[in-house]
Amino acid sequence: MTGRRMQVSVIGSGAAHEAVALEVGRRLAERGCVVVTGGLDEVMAWALRGAREAGGTTIAIVPGESHAEANEWADHVVVTGIGHARNLAVAASGEAVIAVGGSWGTLAEIGFAMRLGRPVVVLEGGPAVEGVPRAATPAEAVELVLAAVVSS
Amino acid sequence: MTGRRMQVSVIGSGAAHEAVALEVGRRLAERGCVVVTGGLDEVMAWALRGAREAGGTTIAIVPGESHAEANEWADHVVVTGIGHARNLAVAASGEAVIAVGGSWGTLAEIGFAMRLGRPVVVLEGGPAVEGVPRAATPAEAVELVLAAVVSS
Amino acid sequence: MTGRRMQVSVIGSGAAHEAVALEVGRRLAERGCVVVTGGLDEVMAWALRGAREAGGTTIAIVPGESHAEANEWADHVVVTGIGHARNLAVAASGEAVIAVGGSWGTLAEIGFAMRLGRPVVVLEGGPAVEGVPRAATPAEAVELVLAAVVSS
Amino acid sequence: MTGRRMQVSVIGSGAAHEAVALEVGRRLAERGCVVVTGGLDEVMAWALRGAREAGGTTIAIVPGESHAEANEWADHVVVTGIGHARNLAVAASGEAVIAVGGSWGTLAEIGFAMRLGRPVVVLEGGPAVEGVPRAATPAEAVELVLAAVVSS
Repeated sequence: MTGRRMQVSVIGSGAAHEAVALEVGRRLAERGCVVVTGGLDEVMAWALRGAREAGGTTIAIVPGESHAEANEWADHVVVTGIGHARNLAVAASGEAVIAVGGSWGTLAEIGFAMRLGRPVVVLEGGPAVEGVPRAATPAEAVELVLAAVVSS
Repeated sequence: MTGRRMQVSVIGSGAAHEAVALEVGRRLAERGCVVVTGGLDEVMAWALRGAREAGGTTIAIVPGESHAEANEWADHVVVTGIGHARNLAVAASGEAVIAVGGSWGTLAEIGFAMRLGRPVVVLEGGPAVEGVPRAATPAEAVELVLAAVVSS
Repeated sequence: MTGRRMQVSVIGSGAAHEAVALEVGRRLAERGCVVVTGGLDEVMAWALRGAREAGGTTIAIVPGESHAEANEWADHVVVTGIGHARNLAVAASGEAVIAVGGSWGTLAEIGFAMRLGRPVVVLEGGPAVEGVPRAATPAEAVELVLAAVVSS
Repeated sequence: MTGRRMQVSVIGSGAAHEAVALEVGRRLAERGCVVVTGGLDEVMAWALRGAREAGGTTIAIVPGESHAEANEWADHVVVTGIGHARNLAVAASGEAVIAVGGSWGTLAEIGFAMRLGRPVVVLEGGPAVEGVPRAATPAEAVELVLAAVVSS
């Protein structure tokens, strides 16, 4: 037992979803989780901000070649240099994944997360994907993924 | 002008879809396209077989570290060593993309292809994704993607 | 200013170099750096152990698809799923890079780190690469890379 | 037996090495090999040109997200979208690898090729790496790698 804290990846995009992302990040941190995102703007920034403001730890996995690409809410920055392929690392690095809004890149991340057997929950407003559970609220999404990790 | 032939990626999986994949590959080759797949079995093999049997050229982009991983219908094997992240290369290497059946990995490829602006057509039986055109037959799928490339 | 701590990647391999890796990790943590490695055994484990035992924070960037692949000294695990291509992420995620021992994978990481303009120092016993500074001791290596980051 | 032709990757960079790259590409094509490179300029372009002018087949594995990034001598373009990590795919896709000139990216490719057990030969003028065979002329380099593949 290493004492390593559970990691949850928050994926998605869209300025309309920032407030929800903030709450998801905050709730994950309050439950003791490290929050991981793709490290750029919108959902990726606000989820980290929510976690940070709640005293949590945050990790940005960015697509480019510079630490400066990460938003200011990242405690740690993983610089992948592999462009959109970093979506695999974002999906895989979560012991569970929550989608907040999002578009095509988010769909790729959902595909990868499901392929790797990570529990995934899509918040209402995110992409509709057959076979992927949905949640109506950040609280419900967080409880669903935590329960799924514990039972897996 | 290099005379380079158009490349179309065929994505998907499922033994139930092999006959359709064979026809898609054949029709693409008959239209002068090079057929690209992820290079393994099922849809990835039968699309290459269809193209090869019609006199076309085939490319396998495999996830592992060995040429031997590719199916026997590959004329050329690109060994990526990057696991599921090679799905990005499969999607990106097509100037258009046709999905035949498929599961989570296919969803990731559709997400990437749409993100990169590649024309995508999903054959009936493949994943339902809002905003992605569908086709009822291999002939229709091939004509749709060729028309989309020409007009793009 | 985010207050993000400087990240230094320690690369290399070889059981003979574990004690040196331990000291490099410890010294980096004592200087306030987060230590990043490829997350597996030998040098990758002992550098994280040294940092952890000195109260530092550690990040493992692993090649496979599971958090369980990381050694027990990792506080955070980035699961890339991209095999040896994760060497790019290891090199890029350091604001500086120190090589301790190592073989062909280490050479790839040195190449990437230099290509991206990261300061690199190779400890005696590591690969001889023309144009890459060397250090005789962990203390010297740590001071060299910290000075290089500050002046860059 | 698929009849697939042997693939040899030519890596390196530097305008000073273009004439040598041209000859390496030509000789590989004359020996029936498909020539693979990173698909951009200098050595990557001239090796493909040499192969093409000798009637051979050429493959460009490019780092960006567009087919247009490849040089005009590429018969087939694999669009990886993974930046410098495509160096792994270039190294791995060759059943043998020849380095012509080159700098840090080439060093990464040599590291990966050796790590994966691909026969590698560096032409004089390329990076000096302990444990990697060297050749004085394109003819010698081509014969060395072909012999190494046959005996492996």
